[in-house]
Amino acid sequence: MLKNFVLSFALLAAGTVQALDQEQAEKAAEIRQAVLEIAGWNVVPAAGMVKQKIPYDAERFQVHAERIAFSMTMIPDAFAADTREFVLHTEALDGIWEDHEEFLRLAADAKEKSATLATVSKSGDLEQVTSAFLDMGQACKACHDKFREDN
Amino acid sequence: MLKNFVLSFALLAAGTVQALDQEQAEKAAEIRQAVLEIAGWNVVPAAGMVKQKIPYDAERFQVHAERIAFSMTMIPDAFAADTREFVLHTEALDGIWEDHEEFLRLAADAKEKSATLATVSKSGDLEQVTSAFLDMGQACKACHDKFREDN
Repeated sequence: MLKNFVLSFALLAAGTVQALDQEQAEKAAEIRQAVLEIAGWNVVPAAGMVKQKIPYDAERFQVHAERIAFSMTMIPDAFAADTREFVLHTEALDGIWEDHEEFLRLAADAKEKSATLATVSKSGDLEQVTSAFLDMGQACKACHDKFREDN
Repeated sequence: MLKNFVLSFALLAAGTVQALDQEQAEKAAEIRQAVLEIAGWNVVPAAGMVKQKIPYDAERFQVHAERIAFSMTMIPDAFAADTREFVLHTEALDGIWEDHEEFLRLAADAKEKSATLATVSKSGDLEQVTSAFLDMGQACKACHDKFREDN
């Protein structure tokens, strides 16, 4: 709890140099992975509907889209802590902090595209939804290609 | 990705018997832990402000409160998969699925109290915010006492 508190305080102090220890760095990685876990958990069934592998359920799709959009709003805070100097189980590449401005630009694009998907999903029109989903997918991919380890 | 897809499909099929394998059960645990990680990440600095260990920043508090509230909306879906038969790194007690109705009742209470906190946090009034935060804390605790392993 105390470590958590110290880290969260560090994360709040945006723009300042953050001195983390190993445990705090692991916590920071856990947090950013949780944010992306929420995204992935919801992208998968949404993709299933778009690819017509599972039936399109407009109401469920909207829930997934809102969760994806919400998770994207957390990316900047979740990646604020620079953990480059630590050995961690992570797919986050050092580039995230080496070129943080570009990372934030791509994250903002993913946020915008996912917000659009959440809005469009209210229409219940699978054609529009598919188009917005594919746009979002490209934004996700652009960031992953540059800042996530290949796997 | 395929495993992910199958699991998400299983998670969508609420109310049906879900046959999971070990990998899917681990994924299900990862997802619910991610949901609660998001909550905890935001509860800690919010608690710091309420306890006046860090300065009260009304705008940041509101962000934290909204994230906590959003995470609480995901609890029922995140705990839909019954993983009792698997050996997992988890603090989730079997009671979650043995008395799922009671679990959902307590989760709904935490959701409601966190939504209230998010609303009240817009006032920027630390006294009101503190009261709503403590109410929410009791709802969290009620669920943890019954359904989370002591640690």
